[in-house]
Amino acid sequence: MSSSDIFIGETIGTAVLILLGGGVVAAVTLKRSKALGAGWLAITFGWGFGVLTGAYIAVGLSGAHLNPAVTIGLAIEGTTAWSDVPLYIASEIFGAMIGATLVWLAYYGHFRAHLTDPEVLREAQTGQEGLVDKDTAPAAGPVLGIFSTGPEIRNAVQNLATETIATAVLVLAILTQGLTEGLGVSGTGVLMTALVVVGLGLSLGGPTGYAINPARDLGPRIVHALLPLPNKGGSDWGYAWIPVAGPLLGGAIAGGIHQLCFA
Amino acid sequence: MSSSDIFIGETIGTAVLILLGGGVVAAVTLKRSKALGAGWLAITFGWGFGVLTGAYIAVGLSGAHLNPAVTIGLAIEGTTAWSDVPLYIASEIFGAMIGATLVWLAYYGHFRAHLTDPEVLREAQTGQEGLVDKDTAPAAGPVLGIFSTGPEIRNAVQNLATETIATAVLVLAILTQGLTEGLGVSGTGVLMTALVVVGLGLSLGGPTGYAINPARDLGPRIVHALLPLPNKGGSDWGYAWIPVAGPLLGGAIAGGIHQLCFA
Amino acid sequence: MSSSDIFIGETIGTAVLILLGGGVVAAVTLKRSKALGAGWLAITFGWGFGVLTGAYIAVGLSGAHLNPAVTIGLAIEGTTAWSDVPLYIASEIFGAMIGATLVWLAYYGHFRAHLTDPEVLREAQTGQEGLVDKDTAPAAGPVLGIFSTGPEIRNAVQNLATETIATAVLVLAILTQGLTEGLGVSGTGVLMTALVVVGLGLSLGGPTGYAINPARDLGPRIVHALLPLPNKGGSDWGYAWIPVAGPLLGGAIAGGIHQLCFA
Amino acid sequence: MSSSDIFIGETIGTAVLILLGGGVVAAVTLKRSKALGAGWLAITFGWGFGVLTGAYIAVGLSGAHLNPAVTIGLAIEGTTAWSDVPLYIASEIFGAMIGATLVWLAYYGHFRAHLTDPEVLREAQTGQEGLVDKDTAPAAGPVLGIFSTGPEIRNAVQNLATETIATAVLVLAILTQGLTEGLGVSGTGVLMTALVVVGLGLSLGGPTGYAINPARDLGPRIVHALLPLPNKGGSDWGYAWIPVAGPLLGGAIAGGIHQLCFA
Repeated sequence: MSSSDIFIGETIGTAVLILLGGGVVAAVTLKRSKALGAGWLAITFGWGFGVLTGAYIAVGLSGAHLNPAVTIGLAIEGTTAWSDVPLYIASEIFGAMIGATLVWLAYYGHFRAHLTDPEVLREAQTGQEGLVDKDTAPAAGPVLGIFSTGPEIRNAVQNLATETIATAVLVLAILTQGLTEGLGVSGTGVLMTALVVVGLGLSLGGPTGYAINPARDLGPRIVHALLPLPNKGGSDWGYAWIPVAGPLLGGAIAGGIHQLCFA
Repeated sequence: MSSSDIFIGETIGTAVLILLGGGVVAAVTLKRSKALGAGWLAITFGWGFGVLTGAYIAVGLSGAHLNPAVTIGLAIEGTTAWSDVPLYIASEIFGAMIGATLVWLAYYGHFRAHLTDPEVLREAQTGQEGLVDKDTAPAAGPVLGIFSTGPEIRNAVQNLATETIATAVLVLAILTQGLTEGLGVSGTGVLMTALVVVGLGLSLGGPTGYAINPARDLGPRIVHALLPLPNKGGSDWGYAWIPVAGPLLGGAIAGGIHQLCFA
Repeated sequence: MSSSDIFIGETIGTAVLILLGGGVVAAVTLKRSKALGAGWLAITFGWGFGVLTGAYIAVGLSGAHLNPAVTIGLAIEGTTAWSDVPLYIASEIFGAMIGATLVWLAYYGHFRAHLTDPEVLREAQTGQEGLVDKDTAPAAGPVLGIFSTGPEIRNAVQNLATETIATAVLVLAILTQGLTEGLGVSGTGVLMTALVVVGLGLSLGGPTGYAINPARDLGPRIVHALLPLPNKGGSDWGYAWIPVAGPLLGGAIAGGIHQLCFA
Repeated sequence: MSSSDIFIGETIGTAVLILLGGGVVAAVTLKRSKALGAGWLAITFGWGFGVLTGAYIAVGLSGAHLNPAVTIGLAIEGTTAWSDVPLYIASEIFGAMIGATLVWLAYYGHFRAHLTDPEVLREAQTGQEGLVDKDTAPAAGPVLGIFSTGPEIRNAVQNLATETIATAVLVLAILTQGLTEGLGVSGTGVLMTALVVVGLGLSLGGPTGYAINPARDLGPRIVHALLPLPNKGGSDWGYAWIPVAGPLLGGAIAGGIHQLCFA
């Protein structure tokens, strides 16, 4: 696998993942979207099929990690060379930033309509908007949830634990699929991984919004901070380390469990 | 692949795609349908499984493009001969017209009940009906959404951008599947493409209703203009070029990206 | 394929199909069910995964037709011997009757609670219950929808057309899968057919509730007529011929199209 | 298959199954979860994708039974040695207890917020909470549904029948997949089984909440009894035998049917 294959595959694949993942949150939450109010099941299927689409495109080039936690897990397990890890992670974050920017383009007028709606602004100030943590109304802007995750109950230990547990399951599933006849990385594995992500969202997304991927959270948060959106509010940087540290820890734990129990 | 295989496969496949795709919008929006109010997730799964059904039927005959943007992408990439392109596109539009007519037959009484309902007509006039753009109440009739797409916020640049981005992702996914071991056009590829379409609907359908296919939008719009429906309102021809131009541009961009990055 | 394999496979497979299919309607409509109000998407996925489960169990024994319209289509196409057709159809109807009886057992207390609820009985009399045709309140009892289909708008021509169109698509999809590499009857074909059925329910289920299978409708209707349910109301025999004739016609049309266009 | 493979595979696989399965009920029912109110379809997909994830991880090591009823069925059929049965079952119950504990960790603050909410406590006392049996408000605590199942209508015969029927279908599907070309235990079989479980939840989950697995119900019920949750209420031990006996009976019946009809 050449460096350029890794760069192109991870950048395009993660961009598509975030375009569809951020896109579904925009679709379900922004005023005047046709999907407004479509609910949590729509959000989890949207993210899962975002993984499916991004991985489907990238798998032939770069193996479709699309997630630094997966890269770390595969490096611990030995599939990915440690020397390739920095390029993987940089490409994933870069791709995530492109994806978040494309969400903004695709929903340009809807962001504008939403962020200038008096009702939305009032709710954001009083902390009553559904997808934003009530404890952090001053820190999290009214559309931050389209870019990055935030906890419903702000508790660093629990939030970290939830992200770590969920990511460990994800990476363990990806690492063990090599054992499973007929479910290699490049075949049905893409579909299975996508459905695992739907499942993780449904089951473990309730507390923190399931980043389970440092690039998925950090890249779009940077884009949120940079974009010229009216009344966008804060990017909640105080929380930003948790969806980075938790998934990396979860990926490492999965790599360790795999070495210990499945090798 | 003979001309008659292309004609039969694309016509029947696209007819089935539009029958199920237009059908699910009819099911969810028409008065006295059992599925009334089933929501956006139902609509996106209905369109996705419409792709699955149409492609499943057509793939052995014509390769199941069912979409001029896919045909253009595959021609740029070299899989489809440019000399076959006109036949593909004509068959796709013809099939889409048949499909839209079958939706009308299957929901005959429901169209009638809906379009003579005083409440529906009042909403259409005051522009309060859910699936119709409030900015364009005079241009878009109350059941046009069953046939063709329309924007929630009318802005040619954004609408074109959204359709272009979404279609580029679709066509890129289809073009790269050839790289992916075990996911050829004729196997699990049909399922994967169908789920990609569900994902695109969930994530990028909010602004314009995701035509992502010129035949899917143009063919049924012609049928809407021709059908003898009472109080059907306008066919919104002012918007009709966007779901043709955007997807074609997206397909060409995907073909270019594929040539550049994945060949 | 021996006669006993056909009998056992079709009987058990169709029983499972109807147990899960009728079961999901019971789950979503009966008072005091945990799934009460889960909606149309739940109903269509429940029926689709009922097909998946029944076909998955039966496919190795009998090929898993589970539907006289499929049997007719396969006989016209030549896969199934005409001499086996009566045994297939009889086993399918017999299995459907077993399945409907098992639904009654699994939901025994819920049928009782529902059918003695004063509110339900009042709604049934005034024809306001959701899943029962308002035009036919005297003919259709308040739980008939768990057993058999009924139209929302009673119009024999349209009802027949809708059932014919939907079944033709189903049978055409099943007949053409033989053409498709890697999608034989016994492999991913089961999954694909199940998802086609979900799609048909979403898209074409609105007018009549998509019988698309004579055994699925007739067998449970007989059971509804025989079961000792309190206040169960009529079995709507005046409609019963449509979900038999329409699907058989659709299956035959699909067999013809397949002979003409895909052979 | 070594004893340590069985122990590790079944323990980790069942832990993941219960983490995601219990997790989705927590996500949909606990106050301040992002998925609050996502509904029955979300719950059934969450459990199904929990099976998918757990089985995907475990299948290469232990064959991924994850369910004593499956183990019994495979022992009757002859695939699993009777001497391995105790280790399988013990590992499944142990794994289920780990999974339930992980749900508690992942939703720690949400359990606390929910169980100290005055409205929740009032509803629990008056027996109006959705997922708890109204007949058994004194026996079943307000979050027991996240751990174990309970009937909506308490009737030992019907409850046992429902669990027996649903489990028989599950185990029969798993046993027959060996017959089906290309659907072995380790390939698409995992996906198919997961979708069968979604289907069983949709169709037969209404009366009892579909344990269909003694370890899934008993292990988490023990954890519910042991965890230091405030105001957690009773563990409803009077019902606990039904989701053990019903599934074991169902598994045995399926094993018998398989021996009789499919061997």
